[in-house]
Amino acid sequence: MFRSQIKVLDCTVRDGGLINKWQFSDDFVRKVFLALSEAGVDYMEIGYKSSEKYFSRDENGAWKFCTEDDLKRIVGGFDNKMKLSAMADIGRVDTEDIIPQKDSALDMIRVACYVKEIDKGISLAHQCIDKGYETTINLMAVSKVLERDLDEALNDLSKSSVPVVYIVDSFGAMYSEQIHFLVKKYFAALPGKELGIHAHNNQQLAFANTIEAIIAGVNRTDATLFGMGRGAGNCPLELLLSFLKNPKFDIRPVIEIIQEIFIPLKAEIEWGYHIPYMITGILNEHPRSGMKAMAAEKLPNLRQYYEDLLDGTPLD
Amino acid sequence: MFRSQIKVLDCTVRDGGLINKWQFSDDFVRKVFLALSEAGVDYMEIGYKSSEKYFSRDENGAWKFCTEDDLKRIVGGFDNKMKLSAMADIGRVDTEDIIPQKDSALDMIRVACYVKEIDKGISLAHQCIDKGYETTINLMAVSKVLERDLDEALNDLSKSSVPVVYIVDSFGAMYSEQIHFLVKKYFAALPGKELGIHAHNNQQLAFANTIEAIIAGVNRTDATLFGMGRGAGNCPLELLLSFLKNPKFDIRPVIEIIQEIFIPLKAEIEWGYHIPYMITGILNEHPRSGMKAMAAEKLPNLRQYYEDLLDGTPLD
Repeated sequence: MFRSQIKVLDCTVRDGGLINKWQFSDDFVRKVFLALSEAGVDYMEIGYKSSEKYFSRDENGAWKFCTEDDLKRIVGGFDNKMKLSAMADIGRVDTEDIIPQKDSALDMIRVACYVKEIDKGISLAHQCIDKGYETTINLMAVSKVLERDLDEALNDLSKSSVPVVYIVDSFGAMYSEQIHFLVKKYFAALPGKELGIHAHNNQQLAFANTIEAIIAGVNRTDATLFGMGRGAGNCPLELLLSFLKNPKFDIRPVIEIIQEIFIPLKAEIEWGYHIPYMITGILNEHPRSGMKAMAAEKLPNLRQYYEDLLDGTPLD
Repeated sequence: MFRSQIKVLDCTVRDGGLINKWQFSDDFVRKVFLALSEAGVDYMEIGYKSSEKYFSRDENGAWKFCTEDDLKRIVGGFDNKMKLSAMADIGRVDTEDIIPQKDSALDMIRVACYVKEIDKGISLAHQCIDKGYETTINLMAVSKVLERDLDEALNDLSKSSVPVVYIVDSFGAMYSEQIHFLVKKYFAALPGKELGIHAHNNQQLAFANTIEAIIAGVNRTDATLFGMGRGAGNCPLELLLSFLKNPKFDIRPVIEIIQEIFIPLKAEIEWGYHIPYMITGILNEHPRSGMKAMAAEKLPNLRQYYEDLLDGTPLD
């Protein structure tokens, strides 16, 4: 597959940080930054933009906040083509935390919101646009949303000036048929806008669903190094770059940093396909009970866990 | 997805045995047999049909041979609906090793062959048909075959009485576009025959490509418990059964045996997605150099391994 408009965003530090509360050393983040830069990745999503009023630095690493000081420690002095992105969650960041883009190392802010918060999401996105950022809305957990509510949210988005909207399979519950269905629906509802895809790997379909979204016309794709991410993880960057064939991508620095950092890290911090995450995926549930099962000293009885979740009485 | 004609074959013991030379205890194989039976799986492929003239029992476990005595130790006394299959490789089994089906516990023999051996494959398959077995041909490694040679093999197959032909992605190199292309080609060349799919997981696409083959009309599918199989492994049975939605399938005994046997086993015998297998997959190469890399005490320099394989000078 080669289509020059396709852009790849790596969200290893942002999504991977959900596992360890962004307790990454500066050296780790700088190495990721340099490897992604060298690999020709279009965007690095380096963390969340959150307010220190709501979250403490004692509990969370720098990449929960992404202040300009944090960013400069990593990217200062490097003349990089790769753009930097941060994600903003509704209600976790205040207007004053987002400075004008001309004064920031960030190029893009992606606003993550649920369908029921779409108006808050659009409002925050408009503030980011006004401040000069490239801006997207990532509509989370759509596998759980009633079609009528989704249609209403898409209608609101169509009237907004947000140029890019992501389909987010938060629970790793979708098959290729759902991906094709949603891409068609989003394109029809959002004329003139670009679409993105963010997939999770509960059913080993994150990469496959990203491919299907690309075939259906989606140009914005998300991936992480070695698939790192909360629970079952994400679409592996190494697979996506190889699929895309665009000569601007170089997979070699990606292989190198995976060997240096991510293979050892995966032995320490577990992520990736496992039965508890598979179970939440096939049942279209939030992975939190799966994470609880995985974090226990001993796995619970998984047949029982499946039956309980099916009955609506999960572990937590 | 629900289509009553779709049949699932589990090849955990046959394909998984490639990792450990079929050194499975009878207790292990019987537990797999009972779990698959209870789960409603259509076929269990219990091993290879090979000649003891060519292979020794000192080196290989019983499931390299699948004699009637071996089979009876496992399935004797159980009144099972599930059918039993064995695979036969060209040149590794003699006519006299295959007794008439009416005297055998096996229901099906699947003949594995390369495109260049297609006439030997058809000849062996016809012998199996004549002896009363359900018979298939599994055409291996088609991602490496020139289209003209493949067309010739399909033409030979169209004239044979073999009723089922499998598309085999031996190197885990295919994307959904190749799957759709090949299914269309096979259906066009093989009127009246049924198609099957056997996928490998080098690019985390074994399940996804099985789904795509099903969407394209393929009714015979292969999977293994927890994806067990040589190298990157296979399409995980637990994912496939959940996708298929057919009420005859019950995923619970599958979850149970995975927890009892396959989660601990995977900690001992490694299989599944890893960078060396990803590299052979994206370069459309046999996984043997990847297996060598994984078996080494320390992983080789993977960037160098990638560059060497790209240049045609792999480890082995």
